Amino acid sequence: MSGSAVVLVSGGLDSATALAVARAEGYACHALSFDYGQRHRRELDSARRVASALGSREHLILRLDFRAIGGSALTGDLPVPKGRSEAAIGAGIPATYVPARNTIFLAHALAWAEVLGAQDIVIGVNALDYSGYPDCRPEYIEAFERMANLATRAGVEGTSRFTIHAPLIRLTKADIVRRGRDLGVDFALTWSCYEPEPDGRACGCCDSCLLRKKGFAEAGLEDPLPTAR
Amino acid sequence: MSGSAVVLVSGGLDSATALAVARAEGYACHALSFDYGQRHRRELDSARRVASALGSREHLILRLDFRAIGGSALTGDLPVPKGRSEAAIGAGIPATYVPARNTIFLAHALAWAEVLGAQDIVIGVNALDYSGYPDCRPEYIEAFERMANLATRAGVEGTSRFTIHAPLIRLTKADIVRRGRDLGVDFALTWSCYEPEPDGRACGCCDSCLLRKKGFAEAGLEDPLPTAR
Repeated sequence: MSGSAVVLVSGGLDSATALAVARAEGYACHALSFDYGQRHRRELDSARRVASALGSREHLILRLDFRAIGGSALTGDLPVPKGRSEAAIGAGIPATYVPARNTIFLAHALAWAEVLGAQDIVIGVNALDYSGYPDCRPEYIEAFERMANLATRAGVEGTSRFTIHAPLIRLTKADIVRRGRDLGVDFALTWSCYEPEPDGRACGCCDSCLLRKKGFAEAGLEDPLPTAR
Repeated sequence: MSGSAVVLVSGGLDSATALAVARAEGYACHALSFDYGQRHRRELDSARRVASALGSREHLILRLDFRAIGGSALTGDLPVPKGRSEAAIGAGIPATYVPARNTIFLAHALAWAEVLGAQDIVIGVNALDYSGYPDCRPEYIEAFERMANLATRAGVEGTSRFTIHAPLIRLTKADIVRRGRDLGVDFALTWSCYEPEPDGRACGCCDSCLLRKKGFAEAGLEDPLPTAR
């Protein structure tokens, strides 16, 4: 594979690994992140460091008005769940779900890809050890790809075709940690916590911290990032 | 029909008519517009007046970073074509195409609909007298609807289903003008021109002005909006 790809980079370990996979496959990577009124700025700082450390050609950060739309713990409307069991995390859609977030992210990635002349878009979603978000499932990614090819100049003129790559979609969190390690991802640069402690450390008990802990534990690796508990 | 609907309102005559159709069908309408660095502010002023005059429950204007993505005459990267023939307008995708614009608009509408508990989204695209945009075709709207129902809580939990309504999609511009008139749309409030004259009047020769003129002429009606030529 080759050519240019737009890679969604959140600053978390999944998207860092997805970026590393795309680089290893030879893509010239254009990293795309969003400033959507996240509860903390740490996420975007991590996105910048990850994009740079993994050799992105450029890094575009777009502002989005998610707070005006509301409806999620991640934009401040609801409390972030803490200390949930693995079963509870796997069951149902949590308060941290941001309505249509990946659709909005991928729509912007599609626009940028069309402007860049890139045919490939990379997103680090995974459908196994995930938080129950509907827009992380393979059938969703396939439906987006189909729609994307009808939405654009490329699809009408038949000169090219967009592919949405979700290289982690069928991996466990442990697989992702191992894959990232093998590709040289520095996990100390990444950030997963939804609601850090006042001292800046990851809380260690939100769904995202718990999934990250599980991934490192099952991979038999140490997380270089300190957590509060 | 009934319930709440999110209606995309650009300030143009198509979306004004689509809003009037949704109101006539009994929907409680939540108007949604975007501030995406359009060349002129007039469009958003018209959107506000149209949303209010046609009885929207509320009107949300979200900011988008289209300028950072680039690639369109409508965000200032390319010149707006003027004085083109009807055949030229119908052939190919023009410089005023904004990459993935309707996908980005509909993605936000989907997010807001999910937060509001609305199952219906209304967009005033039309596939006949249009500017050759790929994201105005029926097959695109159908693919978006399918994707939307996989992207969201509603689709996973099976409690509800989103419908994307494009009530004008198979109408000519003349049909739209007649339909709007019959439903009491005040076309003086709407705005179509891509690049107004320095004195503030519509230019009368960009693709959007030309399609509007053709619509009024074929409907045998007078456009209440003055144009420069």
